[in-house]
Amino acid sequence: MDDRDFMSVALRHARLGAGKVNPNPVVGAVIVRDGIIIATGHHDRFGGWHAERAALEDAKQAGVDVRGATIYVTLEPCCHTGKQPPCSQALIDAGLARVVVGSPDPNPLVAGKGVRQLRAAGIEVVEGVLRNECNQLNEIFLHAITTHTPFVMLKYAMTLDGRIATSTGLSRWITGEAARRRVHEDRGRFASVMVGVGTVLADDPQLTCRIPGGHDPVRVVCDTRLRTPIDAALVTTARTTPTIIATAVEDGQCTLPYRKAGCEILQANIDGNGRVHVGEIVKALGNRGLDSVMIEGGGALAWSALHDRAVSKVSAYVAPKLFGGRNAPGPVGGEGITTPDDAFRIVNRNVITVGDDIVIEGGVAYVHGNR
Amino acid sequence: MDDRDFMSVALRHARLGAGKVNPNPVVGAVIVRDGIIIATGHHDRFGGWHAERAALEDAKQAGVDVRGATIYVTLEPCCHTGKQPPCSQALIDAGLARVVVGSPDPNPLVAGKGVRQLRAAGIEVVEGVLRNECNQLNEIFLHAITTHTPFVMLKYAMTLDGRIATSTGLSRWITGEAARRRVHEDRGRFASVMVGVGTVLADDPQLTCRIPGGHDPVRVVCDTRLRTPIDAALVTTARTTPTIIATAVEDGQCTLPYRKAGCEILQANIDGNGRVHVGEIVKALGNRGLDSVMIEGGGALAWSALHDRAVSKVSAYVAPKLFGGRNAPGPVGGEGITTPDDAFRIVNRNVITVGDDIVIEGGVAYVHGNR
Repeated sequence: MDDRDFMSVALRHARLGAGKVNPNPVVGAVIVRDGIIIATGHHDRFGGWHAERAALEDAKQAGVDVRGATIYVTLEPCCHTGKQPPCSQALIDAGLARVVVGSPDPNPLVAGKGVRQLRAAGIEVVEGVLRNECNQLNEIFLHAITTHTPFVMLKYAMTLDGRIATSTGLSRWITGEAARRRVHEDRGRFASVMVGVGTVLADDPQLTCRIPGGHDPVRVVCDTRLRTPIDAALVTTARTTPTIIATAVEDGQCTLPYRKAGCEILQANIDGNGRVHVGEIVKALGNRGLDSVMIEGGGALAWSALHDRAVSKVSAYVAPKLFGGRNAPGPVGGEGITTPDDAFRIVNRNVITVGDDIVIEGGVAYVHGNR
Repeated sequence: MDDRDFMSVALRHARLGAGKVNPNPVVGAVIVRDGIIIATGHHDRFGGWHAERAALEDAKQAGVDVRGATIYVTLEPCCHTGKQPPCSQALIDAGLARVVVGSPDPNPLVAGKGVRQLRAAGIEVVEGVLRNECNQLNEIFLHAITTHTPFVMLKYAMTLDGRIATSTGLSRWITGEAARRRVHEDRGRFASVMVGVGTVLADDPQLTCRIPGGHDPVRVVCDTRLRTPIDAALVTTARTTPTIIATAVEDGQCTLPYRKAGCEILQANIDGNGRVHVGEIVKALGNRGLDSVMIEGGGALAWSALHDRAVSKVSAYVAPKLFGGRNAPGPVGGEGITTPDDAFRIVNRNVITVGDDIVIEGGVAYVHGNR
């Protein structure tokens, strides 16, 4: 076990807080002495203990001495008093000899000060161990704190020939169980999920997180002309799991049945595409304290979101099968770009396999031509 | 350097024969003593020395003694007299102490006999080192010798949203230079490449191998109603690089201009899809001694080939970009399957990155429903 191995254990602990600590970052920590893990902790709810303190408390409960030990923490320890007193001081007080850090804290209130304070107290600090993995873990937090807008991920599942349904519109199932489970995990860590009304009409989805104990995201329907059926699952369950319908329809009589059912109506302007402006809707969701949006379909919404430059990341699930069919739909519809140079670029792409499926993820880079 | 490392060097030498030895397999060999490579060889042309003999000759030219050394060879040494005397005897005569083998030889005339003969002579034999990589190298040969039909690979390049062109039909370029170079290498190792007439009309391709010294495949156009322009590049260059036009048109007057230009006309029946039967065309190409076909587009031909169950392998290049466009074409067109359970499955899939692009390859498994 070296520093990277112990940090990867800290990462596993950090993930236990996914979906529970928004808008805070998820953080994990492990305390190690003589190559043995003697305590672990993670940030487990907004306002709760930070991971460092949770690990120190874990050691205390177990009656083990942490003086002279090493702590691995996935994010730079805070040095300011927020909901909790500063962690850097707690680590100094506990007598730790060495602190190994994953991501730097991008919060301007911290920004390297935590590490400086530790070093000033004579503690050895190692920075940037598994930094990419630690950053990835908090992609939502890092985006929100640096841009002050929600992190938007476009997620879709398609066949290896680029189809999200057969020519007759059937799509259950394209990916395997492991991939579908990963989508539910993503629902748990996103504050909201968004679909177009076409997906509501075709699939009548619930869009809940089916992981036991998982958090259900706020459901958002982009529905320019208010075509969502009043008996759609998203409407009938709106009192237990919030549903927001973003529409260009302003007539209070038309929106009344949805409001009576417990849905929130979000008035939205039309974009150059003739549909509700996804960029504006995302900003409005940010103003409601939602730090993240996962766009789950269909192709028309995906195009609107790209056209409105609202997408930060693409998560494409590619199933090892072929549907064929010139009329079978693809994941991004709409008008599309006309010349290859104007394509939306996927940058920092990452390829992983999940069960039999392949997931290709990356950031979206916009160029002048692609709108 | 262990056995796998030396075998990977032998694989690199084997690849030097790609496209030059058909219908023979490509084979590479290295001779090692005390951890040092003292000789190398590969099968470099049909009827030429086998790799083992080439390596022994290389040692002889260099004046190095191979007695007691180890030879790494990507394919089991032959033990029958074909165009060349048996390699197993040559290895015994040379006094080698150890033979490390990649793929077993599937040729019923060899089938493990080479290895047995070596062992009977007191030589240590290790089998199956980098076997998958060695098999992959000779996928064409292994398919042809076991099925007696050509190996057919469907190759396409698409965006991460499954488009092979923009909504206005533009497709240059989707993938990057490294990926396009790999396609030219594939053209060099395939006996023939096949396109639909739609691709000829849209792109007027040459379909030659633009790798210096590379072999040009025979070009095959599937052209049900004989719409190939008489001034298409594939027609005007037919005297230097063979072009076969597979058509359902039987009228000799209609086919005459193409024949005069040097094209061969292949009469083909219509499949259930209303187009020339790709399975029959592939068999006819096999009867002409062509052991392999790479299908290069477009979507209508890809569908016909899958529908006719002619495809053995899919090679999908996925570029990290998005085009969007509900009317932008996908890689497999036609009618398509109607229920997800009837999808064509990709098995033994392999994911590699080539430059910025991702290549997903695998065999095709046909199920009852998918035709």
